[in-house]
Amino acid sequence: MKKNILVGQSGGPTAVINASLYGVIAEGMDRLDEVEHVYGMVNGIEGFLKGNYLDLSEDLTQKELERIKLTPAAYLGSCRYRLPKDLSSPVYPEIFQKLEELDIGCFLYIGGNDSMDTVDKLSRYARQAGSPVRFIGIPKTVDNDLMLTDHTPGYGSAAKYVASTVREIVLDASVYHQPAVTIIELMGRNAGWLTAASVLARKYEGDNPLFVYLPESQFDFQKFAKDLDGALRRQPSVVVCASEGISDAQGRLICEYNDQAKTDNFGHKMLTGCGKVLEGFVQRHFDIKVRSVEINVSQRCSGMVLSATDVEEAALAGSFGTRAALEGATGKMVAFVRAEGPCYGVTCSLVDVGQVCNQEKRFPLDWVTGEGNNISARFQEYALPLIQGEPARPMKQGLPVYAYRKRACGV
Amino acid sequence: MKKNILVGQSGGPTAVINASLYGVIAEGMDRLDEVEHVYGMVNGIEGFLKGNYLDLSEDLTQKELERIKLTPAAYLGSCRYRLPKDLSSPVYPEIFQKLEELDIGCFLYIGGNDSMDTVDKLSRYARQAGSPVRFIGIPKTVDNDLMLTDHTPGYGSAAKYVASTVREIVLDASVYHQPAVTIIELMGRNAGWLTAASVLARKYEGDNPLFVYLPESQFDFQKFAKDLDGALRRQPSVVVCASEGISDAQGRLICEYNDQAKTDNFGHKMLTGCGKVLEGFVQRHFDIKVRSVEINVSQRCSGMVLSATDVEEAALAGSFGTRAALEGATGKMVAFVRAEGPCYGVTCSLVDVGQVCNQEKRFPLDWVTGEGNNISARFQEYALPLIQGEPARPMKQGLPVYAYRKRACGV
Repeated sequence: MKKNILVGQSGGPTAVINASLYGVIAEGMDRLDEVEHVYGMVNGIEGFLKGNYLDLSEDLTQKELERIKLTPAAYLGSCRYRLPKDLSSPVYPEIFQKLEELDIGCFLYIGGNDSMDTVDKLSRYARQAGSPVRFIGIPKTVDNDLMLTDHTPGYGSAAKYVASTVREIVLDASVYHQPAVTIIELMGRNAGWLTAASVLARKYEGDNPLFVYLPESQFDFQKFAKDLDGALRRQPSVVVCASEGISDAQGRLICEYNDQAKTDNFGHKMLTGCGKVLEGFVQRHFDIKVRSVEINVSQRCSGMVLSATDVEEAALAGSFGTRAALEGATGKMVAFVRAEGPCYGVTCSLVDVGQVCNQEKRFPLDWVTGEGNNISARFQEYALPLIQGEPARPMKQGLPVYAYRKRACGV
Repeated sequence: MKKNILVGQSGGPTAVINASLYGVIAEGMDRLDEVEHVYGMVNGIEGFLKGNYLDLSEDLTQKELERIKLTPAAYLGSCRYRLPKDLSSPVYPEIFQKLEELDIGCFLYIGGNDSMDTVDKLSRYARQAGSPVRFIGIPKTVDNDLMLTDHTPGYGSAAKYVASTVREIVLDASVYHQPAVTIIELMGRNAGWLTAASVLARKYEGDNPLFVYLPESQFDFQKFAKDLDGALRRQPSVVVCASEGISDAQGRLICEYNDQAKTDNFGHKMLTGCGKVLEGFVQRHFDIKVRSVEINVSQRCSGMVLSATDVEEAALAGSFGTRAALEGATGKMVAFVRAEGPCYGVTCSLVDVGQVCNQEKRFPLDWVTGEGNNISARFQEYALPLIQGEPARPMKQGLPVYAYRKRACGV
C-alpha cells in the first residue's frame, strides 16, 4: 500500500538546506511504487499544525525542482518551535491526527540540534502510541556542531564563503602601507568551526588572518594586545578573526563588554558586537587605524559562493534519509562517515536522533594552537575537501535565479 | 625616442581597479616601438616619492598579468595622499626629478575624485614648468560619483554584489512567518548610487527591499515609521536598504544619532552605524524582530561576484588612457559615453580632469520616488547593463586564485 511523505525545514537558513529538500523530493518522486505524494510543511511543524502544507510532487515542475537545489535559505519556510517535553501534551495527538489525515508514512525534518529534538520527541511518541509513521532527521547547520557525524551539510558552503570573503578582506586591508588592524567577526556562538575556516584564506604560512579566536578557548585582552603588538612590529596590516561567542576566563562574553545581550525564543543569547568591542580596545591601546567587519547572515545564505561538494552531500543526505524511512528506519538522523585513506569520500549512516539533539559538537581543543590564537594544520586537512567545487549557477540579467514558493508564507 | 610609462593606484580598493592596471600594462607592453618600460608606483604617489616602484614590464609573466585582471583591491598598493594646493611647493620639482630619472613620458593614475586632483595638479605643474610628461586619470570608484562620465569602473561589480547579496538576505529574512524588519546598510557617504542598486534584487513589483533611502533625500524618522507600519500590515518580512550617509532635514547624519563620527586623512567623516540607529528605532517603535546588517568592505572588494561588463570596461579605460597619453593627451580623465539606442555599448572619451576632481555626481533626485523611499524604473534601465556577465574565475582548492605583489608593501 502506498504511503505519503511529509518533509519540513526548521531552524536558521543555510545555503544548501534546499539541496536536502531537493534530495527528499527527488527520491520520493522516484519511488512511484511506494510513494503517492510528497507533501511539504510550510514553516515547519509550526505551520503544519496550522494546516499549512503544499503538495510538492504535484505542484513542482522538474525545472523548479532543479532550481530549488541551488537556492539558499528555506524554500518551505522555517520555524523555531519547540515541542513540549511532556509527551502527554495534547499537541501530539493533534499532530498525529493530521499525519493520519494526509496518510503520511514518512516524516523527514531538515534542521539542526533543535529540529532533531522535534524528530526525537515525535518518534518517541509514535512508539508509545503505536503509530507506524517513521521519523528521520536530515542534518543542517552552518555551525557544524551536530554530534555523531563527520560534518554537517551547510558547513562546507559557509566555510567556503568565510574563506573566500576573508581572503578578499585581507587584500582590501593590505593596500595602504600604514599600520592597521582589521577585525572580522564571524558566526559561532559556542562552536568555532566556521571561524576556524578563515585560516583557509591564507596563501602561505604567516599570511593573514594572523590570529583566530574561537569560543572554545578563553579570550584574554592582555594576550590579544601582546599578539597584536608582536605582529605589528613585523608587518603593517594585521587581520584578526573572532567568533561572535568568544568569552574571557570568567566566562563573560566579550560582546557583553558593551552590549545588552538579547535572547531568542529558545533562550539562546543573541550575540552581536564582539568585533566592535575589540575595535574599541585596539583603538584605546594602539594609535593606529582599526576597522571591524561583521560578516553577518551572508555566511549562511550566500547563493553565489557554494561548495559543490556540500550541495551534493546535502542532496545525498535528503535522498538517503528518505530511502531509510521508506525501508522502516525511525528515530534516526542521517550522518556522514568519512572514508579512510588519502581520497576524500563520505558514506551515509543512521545514528540515534536522541543522541544528537540538544547537544553541541565543539571545536577540538587540540586543534587550537598558538596559546589560543591559531588553528592547527589538521583542521585544514579536515575542512579543505568540504569546500571543493563550484556548481554551475543559473543566472539571468546578471543575477542568480532562485526558486520561490508560489503561495505566501503563513497563508 | 622611446619613453617609459608610470602607473599608480590611489584611493579605496575596488574589484576592478586591477583590471584597469591590466589595461595599462598590456597596452604599454603592446607598444614596443614607443614604450621601453611600464613602471608601477607602489602605494601611489606617496610610495613613489619614497622611491618605491616596480618594473611591471620586466617582472610579470603573462599568466600573472592575466591573474591581475581578476584580482580585487589594489595590486600596486594604494595611498590617500593629497598634493599641496600651492604649486610652488618643493614636492613638485621633487616628483618631476624622479620622473626624469626614470625617463617617464606618460603618467597614468587610477583612482577617484581625490586621485583626479593629483592628476590635475601634476598636469598643471607640468604645463607651468614646461615638462613634456603627460598625465592621464583612469576613473575608479564603487560610488559611481565621478562627473562627466556615464558611469565609473568599479560601480558595475559593486552594484552586482549589492543586488545579489540583498537578494540572498531577502530570502534569508523571509523564512519565518513572524513579522520582522531587516535593515541593510550600504556604502555611500553622499551619493546613493550603490544603495540604489539594491532595487535590482527585486524579482517582481512589490518585492523586497520595499524601501530604499539615499543620502540625496532627507530621512525622516516619522515617515520611516509610517512606511514600515503600512508595509507590515501587508506582509511579515520587510527589508529596508539605507546608505551609510543618510541624514535628516537639519542635515544631521542618522549615524550620528548614537555614534561619534571619526574623520579620515582627507577630512571625510568616517561613517558607520546608521543601520544600528534604525534598528534601535524600530525596536522602540514596533514590538517585532529587527536585525541590521552592514554590508561592509565586501561591496568594494568581492572577487567572487564580478560583472564581466565592468571588468572589460575597466581594462578598456586603462588601455584607452595609455593610448591617449602616448598620442599626446594630458590633464584628462578617461570617460565613458553610452551609445544611444536600445543596445548597450560604451565608447571612451577624454574630459578635462580639472572639471572632475573634487566634485561628486549625486544620484538624480528625479530618480527618487515614493516621497524619498524608492527608486524609479529609469535607474534600473541605467544600471542593469552594467552588472551583466560573469568572468571565468580561476579557482584552486575551492578558493579564488589572486595575484600578489612579490615585494612587500612600503619596502
